[in-house]
Amino acid sequence: MAIPFRVGQALDVHAFVSSPRGDGSSEQETPSSPPMMLACLEWPGEPALVGHSDGDVAAHALCDALLGAAGLGDMGTNFGTDRPEWAGASGEVFLGEVVARLMCAGWVPVNATVQVIGNRPRMAQRLEEASARMSGIVGAAVNVSATTTDGLGFTGRGEGLAAQATVLIARVPDGPGTPRP
Amino acid sequence: MAIPFRVGQALDVHAFVSSPRGDGSSEQETPSSPPMMLACLEWPGEPALVGHSDGDVAAHALCDALLGAAGLGDMGTNFGTDRPEWAGASGEVFLGEVVARLMCAGWVPVNATVQVIGNRPRMAQRLEEASARMSGIVGAAVNVSATTTDGLGFTGRGEGLAAQATVLIARVPDGPGTPRP
Amino acid sequence: MAIPFRVGQALDVHAFVSSPRGDGSSEQETPSSPPMMLACLEWPGEPALVGHSDGDVAAHALCDALLGAAGLGDMGTNFGTDRPEWAGASGEVFLGEVVARLMCAGWVPVNATVQVIGNRPRMAQRLEEASARMSGIVGAAVNVSATTTDGLGFTGRGEGLAAQATVLIARVPDGPGTPRP
Repeated sequence: MAIPFRVGQALDVHAFVSSPRGDGSSEQETPSSPPMMLACLEWPGEPALVGHSDGDVAAHALCDALLGAAGLGDMGTNFGTDRPEWAGASGEVFLGEVVARLMCAGWVPVNATVQVIGNRPRMAQRLEEASARMSGIVGAAVNVSATTTDGLGFTGRGEGLAAQATVLIARVPDGPGTPRP
Repeated sequence: MAIPFRVGQALDVHAFVSSPRGDGSSEQETPSSPPMMLACLEWPGEPALVGHSDGDVAAHALCDALLGAAGLGDMGTNFGTDRPEWAGASGEVFLGEVVARLMCAGWVPVNATVQVIGNRPRMAQRLEEASARMSGIVGAAVNVSATTTDGLGFTGRGEGLAAQATVLIARVPDGPGTPRP
Repeated sequence: MAIPFRVGQALDVHAFVSSPRGDGSSEQETPSSPPMMLACLEWPGEPALVGHSDGDVAAHALCDALLGAAGLGDMGTNFGTDRPEWAGASGEVFLGEVVARLMCAGWVPVNATVQVIGNRPRMAQRLEEASARMSGIVGAAVNVSATTTDGLGFTGRGEGLAAQATVLIARVPDGPGTPRP
């Protein structure tokens, strides 16, 4: 059977700058800390997330879910720290590149859900904006939602943010990999 | 391409009443605490879960996964605290309403998995009953399972319960949104 | 509608031997501790995971996701501690048996993603090997990836490993359950 669909799922977690960590150390917040980037939007007044890049957990989870669905590895194998040209890239840049690599491999995104897990930012007022932004970049419906863990765990203690993404992708008609009659 | 499928996924977490919380505070258990509601079943003798509603993490995770798959937001945007008519609603009521909203938007559930994560209740003897109950409400196959986190994290410490749901939905033939020739 | 697809998702968590646990107890590491088994591969020099079996969180998450998608329960209901013939079975054995049960029920795996969450082992160099190994056992594309939680939570403190799996399965043409004209 040549089933023209695949699914994928991934979690991403980043600590807030200056948050206490499990190993007792902490990240240093600098006066020039950039604003939080989340779901490809800027969140003024919110603490930035630690990362080689902009720490956008929503974008990164979605990238990993898409790459996994297409069998293309993950962000580490595609944009690892041994590839300095990707250091500091934004979530939007990664997401655009991931979709391009998917299409080169003969796949297109059908839809995705992205759930941000943590205390802040309060996203309710901007979920539609976040969904529209990520949908525009991916070229398919992306539904962004948010939840808390009711004060429990590292997200409940405000140490960091997590995001989970789940995707459906489809084989491009007559694209690479299409079975020939 | 008009792909007639979508996927969705969501996590929900609620603290047990009287459980210690990450911020040092604790919820007050009252003599009149209702029994735990989980997977649309009553669990006599188990501690209730904290929530604006009945705290049914399994039902809430499934609601959010379904809404996300259809691009209809999440429970917060649909039934938020600014809509008092939904305060205290049961998981079953929310789930029925979510499926109705999906169908209005031209989608039907195909199947779902719901995994409850935590130490208690011991669900093994009632997983079939829970699956049958949720399947009946949703009108599609819902497989309810349970796991522990081996004593680790907030679920391992018995502070609360988590649940994850993943869903597949399909476009209703000739329903709203069906492309016309 | 007889939709020929189902999705499923599951999490599995195991503590490292000798790790501190939420309840204050700890597992005893014995001199004869076997090596870690993860994603159906042996990881020499890594601490073993606690479990009735080999503690392979990646294999177990994938088993539960597949069983859930097909509506066949979970590992507990299929291979529970009341079935001693499965005690100590390897992840590979469980996975092979799960796929056999799926096919008996009229389903085949289409693809899966498995994400390992934790500090160690460092999997980057062996992700392709792990993907190939699990794909071979399942008979469909399995993409294995890995992430950390940035020092946060029980995985960030190195107390244990988690894995999440998400799967798509399809109805076997002319298999059991196929609607007859």
